[in-house]
Amino acid sequence: MLEERKMKEMLSKLISFDMHTGKAPVADATPLQRNLSGLRQIFSNQEAAAAILKTHDPLVYEFYDLHMPEKEGDLAFGSSIVYPGKVGEEFHMTKGHFHTILETAEVYYCLNGYGMMMMESPEGDVEYREMRPGQAVYVPGRYAHRSINLSDTETLVTFFVFRADAGHNYGTVEERGFRKLVVADGDGYAVVDNPNWVGA
Amino acid sequence: MLEERKMKEMLSKLISFDMHTGKAPVADATPLQRNLSGLRQIFSNQEAAAAILKTHDPLVYEFYDLHMPEKEGDLAFGSSIVYPGKVGEEFHMTKGHFHTILETAEVYYCLNGYGMMMMESPEGDVEYREMRPGQAVYVPGRYAHRSINLSDTETLVTFFVFRADAGHNYGTVEERGFRKLVVADGDGYAVVDNPNWVGA
Repeated sequence: MLEERKMKEMLSKLISFDMHTGKAPVADATPLQRNLSGLRQIFSNQEAAAAILKTHDPLVYEFYDLHMPEKEGDLAFGSSIVYPGKVGEEFHMTKGHFHTILETAEVYYCLNGYGMMMMESPEGDVEYREMRPGQAVYVPGRYAHRSINLSDTETLVTFFVFRADAGHNYGTVEERGFRKLVVADGDGYAVVDNPNWVGA
Repeated sequence: MLEERKMKEMLSKLISFDMHTGKAPVADATPLQRNLSGLRQIFSNQEAAAAILKTHDPLVYEFYDLHMPEKEGDLAFGSSIVYPGKVGEEFHMTKGHFHTILETAEVYYCLNGYGMMMMESPEGDVEYREMRPGQAVYVPGRYAHRSINLSDTETLVTFFVFRADAGHNYGTVEERGFRKLVVADGDGYAVVDNPNWVGA
């Protein structure tokens, strides 16, 4: 009887996200894939992007989306997977976004790899945090945020949670870019000014 | 210059939660510990609880709290750690709570062990989900929820996120209990009616 009711009306969810690859069963969540051809404008070095695209179109990142209704009080969650690679000196990264309801936070828990969360407020405050497995990054409200894979070999996997009605504003970042770039520097990285940043 | 500003005003957070033990550095988060002596009334078998307490006072669970301000749009997060053990036939578990803002959801990501999320709405809808590492449980708004450790040997560790202003209502569960108990049944468990449940 309980089983029958559960089949019909269950409101809770159980979703598996592989702790190494970040992938979820396709029956439960839709993978949204971003290849370089659809992303090239986020990278600083357009010649390097064009050179890669002459031979192949690498998958830069994907995330698993549960299509949660945008309801206040509710939470959306899923996994983000950034594959290792560079475009010129710049590491593979996500587009990055503000929340439409600007003051809403987001939490990321790193499951695999080595990366960075780059954050930037409309006022120009910049914060960034390295992420390794077992580390939670709290992105405060107001901050655009982007995940960057700092490893040459490992996939950066994070589990994320945000308010379901927060909404995603990709447009502002598309128009302006982020104020800072993260580029390879010897065996490590450097955070440098973005020469193409479009000021307010 | 950036480093100096970051030291002073950094709004983002980076907190490590050990993926096996669930523990965070005490500098970052406060462990709140619940021993049997302070919890005994949540268990069905009071004689069994009294017998244990004659010899020792086991740590049943603990969680790491970040003391996030209860601000709308913000998210609170941390780890929950339920140690293996039983009181009579009942497995170690948390007190369980409703959110004060009843319609707010919560997300748990299981990092270690084997357990269950028991959920119950004020109207008497009951849902429960087993949890294993890599599985996310979505607790919908309106549902009281309690973590139960189903393993005899392993610690149940979950990473949780909820709206920072949701608030915790422990009182209703303290007065009424949950409608269902989870008890050992051979090598597994059974979900049975709680004979002590106090109806509305």
